[in-house]
Amino acid sequence: MASYKEMSRQELLEEKEKLQKEYDGYKAENLSLNMARGIPSKAQLELSMGLLDSVNSSTDLTGINGADYRNYGILDGIPEAKQLFADLFHVTTDQIIVGGNSSLTLMFDTISSAMAHGLLGSTPWASLPEVKFLCPVPGYDRHFGITEYFGIKMIPVEMNEDGPDMDFIEKIVERDPFVKGVWCVPKYANPTGITYSDEVVRRFANLHPAAKDFRIFWDNAYCIHHLFHEDVQLLDILKECEKAGNPNMVYMYFSTSKITFPGAGLAGMASSKENITAIKKRMMVQSIGPDKINQLRHMKFFVNLDGLLDQMKKHAEIIRPKFEAVEKTLTEGFADSGIATWSKPNGGYFVSLNVLDGCAKKTVRLCKDAGVTLTKAGATYPYGNDPKDSNIRIAPTSPTVEELTEAMKVLACSAKLAAVQKLLEQ
Amino acid sequence: MASYKEMSRQELLEEKEKLQKEYDGYKAENLSLNMARGIPSKAQLELSMGLLDSVNSSTDLTGINGADYRNYGILDGIPEAKQLFADLFHVTTDQIIVGGNSSLTLMFDTISSAMAHGLLGSTPWASLPEVKFLCPVPGYDRHFGITEYFGIKMIPVEMNEDGPDMDFIEKIVERDPFVKGVWCVPKYANPTGITYSDEVVRRFANLHPAAKDFRIFWDNAYCIHHLFHEDVQLLDILKECEKAGNPNMVYMYFSTSKITFPGAGLAGMASSKENITAIKKRMMVQSIGPDKINQLRHMKFFVNLDGLLDQMKKHAEIIRPKFEAVEKTLTEGFADSGIATWSKPNGGYFVSLNVLDGCAKKTVRLCKDAGVTLTKAGATYPYGNDPKDSNIRIAPTSPTVEELTEAMKVLACSAKLAAVQKLLEQ
Repeated sequence: MASYKEMSRQELLEEKEKLQKEYDGYKAENLSLNMARGIPSKAQLELSMGLLDSVNSSTDLTGINGADYRNYGILDGIPEAKQLFADLFHVTTDQIIVGGNSSLTLMFDTISSAMAHGLLGSTPWASLPEVKFLCPVPGYDRHFGITEYFGIKMIPVEMNEDGPDMDFIEKIVERDPFVKGVWCVPKYANPTGITYSDEVVRRFANLHPAAKDFRIFWDNAYCIHHLFHEDVQLLDILKECEKAGNPNMVYMYFSTSKITFPGAGLAGMASSKENITAIKKRMMVQSIGPDKINQLRHMKFFVNLDGLLDQMKKHAEIIRPKFEAVEKTLTEGFADSGIATWSKPNGGYFVSLNVLDGCAKKTVRLCKDAGVTLTKAGATYPYGNDPKDSNIRIAPTSPTVEELTEAMKVLACSAKLAAVQKLLEQ
Repeated sequence: MASYKEMSRQELLEEKEKLQKEYDGYKAENLSLNMARGIPSKAQLELSMGLLDSVNSSTDLTGINGADYRNYGILDGIPEAKQLFADLFHVTTDQIIVGGNSSLTLMFDTISSAMAHGLLGSTPWASLPEVKFLCPVPGYDRHFGITEYFGIKMIPVEMNEDGPDMDFIEKIVERDPFVKGVWCVPKYANPTGITYSDEVVRRFANLHPAAKDFRIFWDNAYCIHHLFHEDVQLLDILKECEKAGNPNMVYMYFSTSKITFPGAGLAGMASSKENITAIKKRMMVQSIGPDKINQLRHMKFFVNLDGLLDQMKKHAEIIRPKFEAVEKTLTEGFADSGIATWSKPNGGYFVSLNVLDGCAKKTVRLCKDAGVTLTKAGATYPYGNDPKDSNIRIAPTSPTVEELTEAMKVLACSAKLAAVQKLLEQ
């Protein structure tokens, strides 16, 4: 097989026929595989079954400060859990809130709060003529969903190999007072797998925003989700912001959704003391506090940061072969067709595939028709609008290696078929 | 002892001296009793220890519809839990959301949503020149806290023996389009213990609000918290609203905070299908869904509605003697002084005490100085402002009968001392 773009019309027609036959073969297999969302596999969930035994009716549910965790009280997380995340992020416990079961809900709430009440005394965003957010693309669809819901105008920002285009970000953030935030998944980014370089993190921390209440939404969802044993280091943005005299500029979010059980895990955030104090003031009106028993359950299961990191190694062992299968099958499938590139992440939950411009939607539809459900094409862009119609997000964690291999064959075949058709139309 | 208001100055001075001696005696005891919040006692918490065993690592966590409750999925509660609350409130499961651990958070979120986005297509409340809420008084401080936080103007409404003053409510709701809601605790109300009569519920359901998006916030927190075996019936407002052609006018809230464990319980709401569908649309942006494992834990513990109601009988057996001790000690303590009245609730968590006008703050301070902490005087009114300075909320569930008896003696003595001083000043 040669590069499609260099093929003659005749060669493309022959290739199309060959691909159509291969595709029809997959279709006849009546596959039913879903790779739409990044969800843990059964084997990963099994890793946390001990969590369900770590608290039982014989457990003393008295906390280290003497509180009865079965009763009312404690707004921002049990001290044991706050300490765990303070250790992980090298901050003090007064910079941590552990609350609820979803970091997405915390992000939603931060923005909801900024819209209605402003941040640290700033004008409520809803009272401004417009509010804009920067959205590195491709990015996480559910981030974009929140800003869209609140009518915040989203501005896409190109991603480089080391993070978002900081030249662009600096220019717009330092000039436009209506640019109030930026969505970041700084480590093993969703979906590109990129980890921001030290320089990118420093440039973020050293921004001089036109808006005093500009905030970096630092969704550190995959901070310890390494696929390989060597940890890719991400510079500590909280420290860098402090150094730069911008201590309040960043909210960091995390959760154990993909560490223990999605929905039954812990979520939290880290920020400056001033930001955390302001959020706790809101929470005093909003909340009776988190599920302290489930927090204790997690602490008895993990014991400490080492326990948490051990669990991540076990996750990596389960999902690494899946990422390797994706890499292998896509390499074989696309061979030297020259119509696709994809990420080779060191961690996280996704592989980002770029097919021939104008072919992502068609590829996803062809896959769907052959029983392989992928994330909707365009989902990784604000308003679901991928201007090149080329990005497809692959979520390899849930299927088996065999299923994945089959699905990646279907995907490569579908992308090639769509590409050949496109090239023939030109 | 005679009625204080009929005493001569000399008699009052003698009474004051006697009370001061009694009060000094209590002070010397170095008491330390806290009755500020309505929280379950240790004995009540013990009732739910089985909840911590109902799910363990051997449990099959597959739901009735085949979903793995350890993983992502399900936005509005597991079907088993939705069925339980649908049974309790005589609605269909598509009228129910079971989500999160706190009904307060759900109420906050409903109002937050109305402020930013409006309800069922109405103008966002934040865009209106003003928004007003009706607040039956005395009422629940945390309701008032939410509306105050959002800058909603609160209008107090007098409570009668059978519920709020409906003449007043009808007049203002049907005339003023900026009156958008009313806070109600319709059964065993916080703090008065009143249950709304059928007529009051019907008049609520048959309102013709000037605001199309007027809503009744029906906090059914104590719907099954009977103190005696005979259940006081509350008319079903969801049905009545439907009958009256106002199906979307009411949001009902509930939780198991005072049934199992506060913070580790289940919360939810019931409303029309149209309202629930709108809320789920928001939740799709906001949430990854509730803690399904904790919902399953509750379902395995209660099994069904009978199990839930059995649990409530056990709660009643524990707390009934406490309410009886309050009643007995206040009756003896105030004797025929004629300066106090108090509620004799059939359920719920509170006793509402009215002392001589102008004496509530002073009484609470005197109690505090003698080691008995009560809810802040005024807390049961919007903005913490009890215009008569007479209402005090008593939360009897947490202390022992002995502690309560002592605390009520201190309270009666303090209230009488404050009253005598007040009468002497006149």
